Amino acid sequence: MTLNVLIAMDSFKGNLTALQAGRAVERGVLCACPAARTRVIPVADGGEGTVEAFLAAVGGEKRTSVVHGPLGALTKASWGLLPDGRAVVELAAASGLPLVAKDKRSPLRASTRGTGEQIREVLNAGCRTIVLGLGGSATIDGGLGILTALGARATDQRGNLLPPCGASLEKIAQLDLSQMDSRLSGLNWLVMCDVQNVLCGPLGAAAVFGPQKGARGKTIERLDAGLANWETVLLQATGRDVSTLPGGGAAGGAAAGLAAVFSVPLLRGIDVVAELTGLKDAMSWADLAFTGEGRLDAQTGFGKVISGLSACAKSCGVPLVALTGSLGGDFKDIEALGLSGAFAIGAGPCPFAQALKRSESDLERMAGTVTRLFTQSRLQKSDRAATES
Amino acid sequence: MTLNVLIAMDSFKGNLTALQAGRAVERGVLCACPAARTRVIPVADGGEGTVEAFLAAVGGEKRTSVVHGPLGALTKASWGLLPDGRAVVELAAASGLPLVAKDKRSPLRASTRGTGEQIREVLNAGCRTIVLGLGGSATIDGGLGILTALGARATDQRGNLLPPCGASLEKIAQLDLSQMDSRLSGLNWLVMCDVQNVLCGPLGAAAVFGPQKGARGKTIERLDAGLANWETVLLQATGRDVSTLPGGGAAGGAAAGLAAVFSVPLLRGIDVVAELTGLKDAMSWADLAFTGEGRLDAQTGFGKVISGLSACAKSCGVPLVALTGSLGGDFKDIEALGLSGAFAIGAGPCPFAQALKRSESDLERMAGTVTRLFTQSRLQKSDRAATES
Repeated sequence: MTLNVLIAMDSFKGNLTALQAGRAVERGVLCACPAARTRVIPVADGGEGTVEAFLAAVGGEKRTSVVHGPLGALTKASWGLLPDGRAVVELAAASGLPLVAKDKRSPLRASTRGTGEQIREVLNAGCRTIVLGLGGSATIDGGLGILTALGARATDQRGNLLPPCGASLEKIAQLDLSQMDSRLSGLNWLVMCDVQNVLCGPLGAAAVFGPQKGARGKTIERLDAGLANWETVLLQATGRDVSTLPGGGAAGGAAAGLAAVFSVPLLRGIDVVAELTGLKDAMSWADLAFTGEGRLDAQTGFGKVISGLSACAKSCGVPLVALTGSLGGDFKDIEALGLSGAFAIGAGPCPFAQALKRSESDLERMAGTVTRLFTQSRLQKSDRAATES
Repeated sequence: MTLNVLIAMDSFKGNLTALQAGRAVERGVLCACPAARTRVIPVADGGEGTVEAFLAAVGGEKRTSVVHGPLGALTKASWGLLPDGRAVVELAAASGLPLVAKDKRSPLRASTRGTGEQIREVLNAGCRTIVLGLGGSATIDGGLGILTALGARATDQRGNLLPPCGASLEKIAQLDLSQMDSRLSGLNWLVMCDVQNVLCGPLGAAAVFGPQKGARGKTIERLDAGLANWETVLLQATGRDVSTLPGGGAAGGAAAGLAAVFSVPLLRGIDVVAELTGLKDAMSWADLAFTGEGRLDAQTGFGKVISGLSACAKSCGVPLVALTGSLGGDFKDIEALGLSGAFAIGAGPCPFAQALKRSESDLERMAGTVTRLFTQSRLQKSDRAATES
């Protein structure tokens, strides 16, 4: 019996890249079933690791340059030039939380302008389509940094130019888009956005994501008021109301800024991955599919990766199994995600630090175990008795 | 599609009885597949929990009485009277390690006579067959305690009667079996013994199991010398040489004593369970079977339970899946045990104490997950696409 296995792992953040995780699963599959045919397509949700995942999935070239980091210091950041000429940029590369030490985090001061500088490079390289992964930002600047780097000008009531950071949002009286890079008009955007939060209010960018970015109490209120003002300014400048846009609050409101100015739709990361990597074809080829990431929870962003994958798996009739370091929720939650199974990969009670060290071999073992159970399950009792004895 | 599921769990020692574990798995199976038919047959390896497991598997009556504990203090101990009139006694009930505080353990002083007293009760109850589970003993008395309680007399060179404990073994010059309970001649023994250690020497009862029973250094040497003398005495008294008998070292050498005096074979626990509980019929009825215990390792005694079950599962063509708190060894070891899968039930890295508290719900969840994957795997792609969407 042939066995085609699609392996579409996300990264185990801070531990394994999506490709490393995928290769570990592949080794386990081949250990259990040496005759299996495998395809490893790393997936990403738009956050850290998105560029790596696309390059690993379809090939291409990594471009690295020096741009401004979230707090203004220069930093190296990479983006991906895919074989078909599309560019992949992850906002976290130039504007991400890992670039700022925990005690230095300050969304009032942080800016996405480094990401805008990367987008300029993308235009310089002649790319006509940009895949932009939102997620993991250190900023709450409504995308002002990106827009400024691309030629927008934000001024206060007196006409003074404002620096592109969170603290400026409450002061902006006007946004001038007339000087923006003309090449932007021919650019197609595929924006990966896996949160549903709106721009402001109690479920907005400041209230929900402010704390993890270093904002507290009054600062959150100030940022939220700034985002409310930004919403009004964007409406005036573009004629587009992003106040109720689901996902507008992603990446510190950068999603809303881009949606208003460039009229781009916000897409589920997994749908963009599926479109660019041939995931759908691979799924219909497969008899069994694996996905997974470091922590699996029906409530997390990865729930969206899974629900996208599982919709694809369902339409193809392929059982989708998730392998994860840590499993939130219960059996019914997992079932609701549309998975055929979700397994925590550990071999028993063990401290987190130790589990991290073992995760590659644990992934391999669990992938082997599931593959074996799957192939055994497909046999008739009489065949099993014959092949096993 | 019908789904018949056999659930043959061992206990999660110190945490869940075999029946509790089986019921948790059953709940998980029925949650994933409400139409499944289940049979829960608790299994045991002869150690602690064996009586409970048999009573849970086939019904019957628990008989409790007061007998001598390992160090002579009176203790309550139970045995099981099965519906067919057979008796189940576990040596650990009257002579087990849990009956002695850690700082009081002394195999020189400990005796199996309480177990002998239980066997007298079995004879008093008119039973003709006794299932005796060896394992978990606090003793290294070669079974002298059991034999003495049943009428044997051990004397030193001067003809002085010796007390039935480990320290006496080196002094025994003669074993008089002439006064033994006459009803023993009509008794059938099914002795469950899941270790392969011989009576004495470096792989014998004193060297290997002495340390966990509280013996150190010189004491181990003295006990080992005593067992060597006991071997000679048994040969003289019975004409049977038990020096190379695999398993003779079980339960502090009680296995060798019983094998010599009553000429009983030492059986694998799981074979005895299979014979008495209808496990084989249940296996051929099943489409899927679960087993498991607290810790699964190719090297442990439970490896024997699994290899017995897996031989049975293989001959019936039934996939056997083990669920365990903690999994030793790698994928290949598990495969070598003949399992279709072995899963650690935890949901992620977590301290041991916390894992213990969750093990019942973890078992339930994992049983559900495996059942779902199994039923999904049996479908054709086209059926899956139809039933899933």
